Amino acid sequence: MPLTIYNTLNRKKEIFEPLKAPHVGMYVCGPTVYGDAHLGHARPAITFDIVFRFLMHLGYKVRYVRNITDVGHLVNDADEGEDKIGKKARLEQLEPMEVVKYYTDRYHANMDQLNVLHPSIEPTASGHIIEQIEMVGKIIENGFAYQAEGSVYFDVEKYNKIHRYGKLSGRKIEELRENTRELAGQEQKRNSFDFALWKKADPAHLMHWPSPWSEGFPGWHMECSAMGAKYLGETFDIHGGGMDLLFPHHESEIAQANAANGHDAVKYWMHNNMITVDGQKMGKSLNNFITLNEFFSGKHEKLKRAYSPMTIRFFILQAHYRSTVDFSNDALQAAEKGMKKLFETVKLIGRLQAGGGSSIDVRPFEELCIQAMEDDFNTPIVIAHLFELSKIINQINDGKATLSADDLEFVKNLYQTWLNDLLGLRDEKDEDDSQVIESLMETILALRKEAKLNKDYATADRIRDALSKINIEIKDTRDGAEWVFK
Amino acid sequence: MPLTIYNTLNRKKEIFEPLKAPHVGMYVCGPTVYGDAHLGHARPAITFDIVFRFLMHLGYKVRYVRNITDVGHLVNDADEGEDKIGKKARLEQLEPMEVVKYYTDRYHANMDQLNVLHPSIEPTASGHIIEQIEMVGKIIENGFAYQAEGSVYFDVEKYNKIHRYGKLSGRKIEELRENTRELAGQEQKRNSFDFALWKKADPAHLMHWPSPWSEGFPGWHMECSAMGAKYLGETFDIHGGGMDLLFPHHESEIAQANAANGHDAVKYWMHNNMITVDGQKMGKSLNNFITLNEFFSGKHEKLKRAYSPMTIRFFILQAHYRSTVDFSNDALQAAEKGMKKLFETVKLIGRLQAGGGSSIDVRPFEELCIQAMEDDFNTPIVIAHLFELSKIINQINDGKATLSADDLEFVKNLYQTWLNDLLGLRDEKDEDDSQVIESLMETILALRKEAKLNKDYATADRIRDALSKINIEIKDTRDGAEWVFK
Repeated sequence: MPLTIYNTLNRKKEIFEPLKAPHVGMYVCGPTVYGDAHLGHARPAITFDIVFRFLMHLGYKVRYVRNITDVGHLVNDADEGEDKIGKKARLEQLEPMEVVKYYTDRYHANMDQLNVLHPSIEPTASGHIIEQIEMVGKIIENGFAYQAEGSVYFDVEKYNKIHRYGKLSGRKIEELRENTRELAGQEQKRNSFDFALWKKADPAHLMHWPSPWSEGFPGWHMECSAMGAKYLGETFDIHGGGMDLLFPHHESEIAQANAANGHDAVKYWMHNNMITVDGQKMGKSLNNFITLNEFFSGKHEKLKRAYSPMTIRFFILQAHYRSTVDFSNDALQAAEKGMKKLFETVKLIGRLQAGGGSSIDVRPFEELCIQAMEDDFNTPIVIAHLFELSKIINQINDGKATLSADDLEFVKNLYQTWLNDLLGLRDEKDEDDSQVIESLMETILALRKEAKLNKDYATADRIRDALSKINIEIKDTRDGAEWVFK
Repeated sequence: MPLTIYNTLNRKKEIFEPLKAPHVGMYVCGPTVYGDAHLGHARPAITFDIVFRFLMHLGYKVRYVRNITDVGHLVNDADEGEDKIGKKARLEQLEPMEVVKYYTDRYHANMDQLNVLHPSIEPTASGHIIEQIEMVGKIIENGFAYQAEGSVYFDVEKYNKIHRYGKLSGRKIEELRENTRELAGQEQKRNSFDFALWKKADPAHLMHWPSPWSEGFPGWHMECSAMGAKYLGETFDIHGGGMDLLFPHHESEIAQANAANGHDAVKYWMHNNMITVDGQKMGKSLNNFITLNEFFSGKHEKLKRAYSPMTIRFFILQAHYRSTVDFSNDALQAAEKGMKKLFETVKLIGRLQAGGGSSIDVRPFEELCIQAMEDDFNTPIVIAHLFELSKIINQINDGKATLSADDLEFVKNLYQTWLNDLLGLRDEKDEDDSQVIESLMETILALRKEAKLNKDYATADRIRDALSKINIEIKDTRDGAEWVFK
């Protein structure tokens, strides 16, 4: 079975055929770095991490571009008003790029905690002003944009006469005309649904660059079009992002590509669904979000306790990426419990004795997992197969079934490949180690104390010697024994 | 005593007076990201991390800019030839920005391992092409640069008639005339010592942007001038870097600032000295370097074993930043041993009992440490004071001296401030924890086995219960007891 991908553009699953196999180009919209990443940022990152990992597993050479938006994204995702990062910088009395550096680093740290692989290239909007200006120039040249008082707007109506504006989102220009609010400062636009390609900076605006039209900054949608084209070419395979970006962001990207180059840039559009809290999208603009750091520390009123990065990852992977995921403490705790079971299985496999032969055929599981992933990256089915296999392992442990040495090795590798390498999960037990050591030493010192009370000095000495070998020194003081690493 | 800094520009220690206290602007030359970071990268990063930490400790609000060079740095630090990153990209069949992302991430990981604080802003050369073009334009306008076949060169001779080229390095233009080799492709220059501000890209060059002069790329020295000015202003306090950058890089930065703005940009120039191997500078171009990852793993023919990140950091801090440091296994092992002693002291303090009063005056140590740091960041003296204090702590432990509860608290805080916060060192013991746990569990299970053999079931059960509390489950099997985290 070949890999199939649900293409939002055509609203159906399609066989994946890269434009230039074995190379695959993938562009995913990254964060606007003006605040801590929340669960709504984790989902696209993990979704496309799975795509990245599986494509590489299939042997493709993937160039994965995920951008950092550090300029041009205005509050309310609008064409007027303050830059999200500029606003944060003003409030905190920082230079915008200090805000960018701070939140980019924190985003990276969170992504590492979630075991999200680094993309191949991570371009920034502010680092590609020239490329954006060039593309705006091309769109003007082709007649699909107009200037107004130093700003440049995309002429949606004119574009729509030749191409179709709305082909990704299904929106029609007539509806847009009725539904788009007339916002203050929009009088430069011919139509309210036109969008900015370049904005003249007002005096309060912190970030601006020279351009043929004004000292200003690029419109929000420009960066992805320009950077996608620069690093993946005028046409590439996959463009991903959250469903909330479908309109107007991705719709406008499609319009920009067609207006500049006369053809679509992207073959497969992929969108992950939203995370909801009480049925509402979790998001910074709705102010109902829980940051990843809050999940990891448990410090948020909606959280009953802390949840580890791998619990979050597993929780997200337990749903298909095109389904919504509703946040709840119960669901997270169930995810944690489920994941733990899988890692116990892995440990159990390491301790199992091979039988003379296999009483159960475990070989089909590999193919089953592959089939699930090839069916539009169906991670919940993969996880279900791993649980099924887990049951078999427990049966073997209970002596109710046997596996040959070869099959045992096969099963071990299968978990390594699927649980660790492809789902990107890892056992987190190690993290509380130093506390465990404290507790174990307490237990050992109590045993030694007892031995000494019983005048069993041989045992007491044996304990001291065993600890000495691992560089732990026991010191007897008036207040009892103490220990220290030598 | 006020903070004094050795200013390379004036060849003497000067009292540090920031231009706009309490704000301090500091710019440090970061890596060219075409290979793994080596000891020669660790030294400037750690040196200026110390400066950053101490300035903040003194109450300054520091904006610390450390750049990433991702374009424009040509092989042999010359004005002709391949771009270092472009060359790597060609050899590995990657897009240059893939090389940049890969090595930037690895550099960041190394810096985190070395406990180097993140700078406030980390701008890239490729992300500031516009700013560089603008500054080149100003230099041309002011008559200090000339165009030749699409490239722009700095006119050193003309500049030298008004300002003085060589005031940082002490080089004289007459010497330069004699000593600068006439390299191939230099015929566009009026004088061999002129340097490129903008280079026209030849067809093989992968990275290029439009400019008023040609499709090309900026000269190596431009980025620091342009980004320093953008983020710290036309004049700022501190510019740091390795001594190997003094000429031509920093000398040219000074010339560019004066040519563009009519005045110096930097008040204090700071340079860390080199790390030598058998008396030679350790560097990528000399091919005698050991990467940080090689140090951490011990995998290099010159290394007798692995050295931890903190050992490397301590090794570097044991020398004053303006002294050379000669690499050797013996020196690293001595550093490791010394640092271990200090962390043992910290642990010992935690266990000491306060006496009724203090028989030794420990309070002066704080002032002594401050004095050492205020004397041009003299970390070896700080470390010497900490060793001295360590001796006193041992005397107290041996019952030869006493400290009051207040003084004990003071000493504890002093180590926290100086060892952890200002020198940026941390105890690395925790890293082998999981192995320690394995060994402790072996010991405990042996004790339990023995208790059972002796029919001391109460003890055996007590062990089981104690372990159960920290989520360790014991399973008795035919082959003995096994344990697992629940």
